[in-house]
Amino acid sequence: MIAVIAEVRVKDGAESDFVAVVEALSRRVHEHEPGNLMYRLTRSPSETRQYKFIELYADGAALRAHGESPHFRASLDSMEGLLDGAPRIEYLDVVHLGE
Amino acid sequence: MIAVIAEVRVKDGAESDFVAVVEALSRRVHEHEPGNLMYRLTRSPSETRQYKFIELYADGAALRAHGESPHFRASLDSMEGLLDGAPRIEYLDVVHLGE
Repeated sequence: MIAVIAEVRVKDGAESDFVAVVEALSRRVHEHEPGNLMYRLTRSPSETRQYKFIELYADGAALRAHGESPHFRASLDSMEGLLDGAPRIEYLDVVHLGE
Repeated sequence: MIAVIAEVRVKDGAESDFVAVVEALSRRVHEHEPGNLMYRLTRSPSETRQYKFIELYADGAALRAHGESPHFRASLDSMEGLLDGAPRIEYLDVVHLGE
């Protein structure tokens, strides 16, 4: 299992457009990506316009399927003009805790 | 809904003890905390001994219940000697995406 934390900063005045893009993306992730186990968007309560995606994938293949999906690629185009700089993305190995 | 990302660095040679403590804690979180929606431990593939807890709570009350729980407090004591410095903790508001 792989976790992804992707941090973005949204341009001033673009937050509602950004959330709308992510809402549509999230719906498609749930509809088309069986290997995605969680897809959440979070907002920092202290730093303005700072958002973090928190995502879980069953394995590397599921993560690749996400990255190559038409809905994800379309959302990158839509998001591009809404972000202040490039996203900062972390890939983390989920530790099996005997669940 | 509230997400928590807690970053810790584990002392050299203490990783298996650390994971054992977290395994026991995770079991008790699942058993005793209905307001916890996710409790995952991740390891950085690039930075040695660097771990991140990724957690989801239904609301502030669920987060407080976690922090005040005997099993969490006991785990803090057990973890103390295993960590290199204090944890870095982030509290994030989960954005409702029309689910």
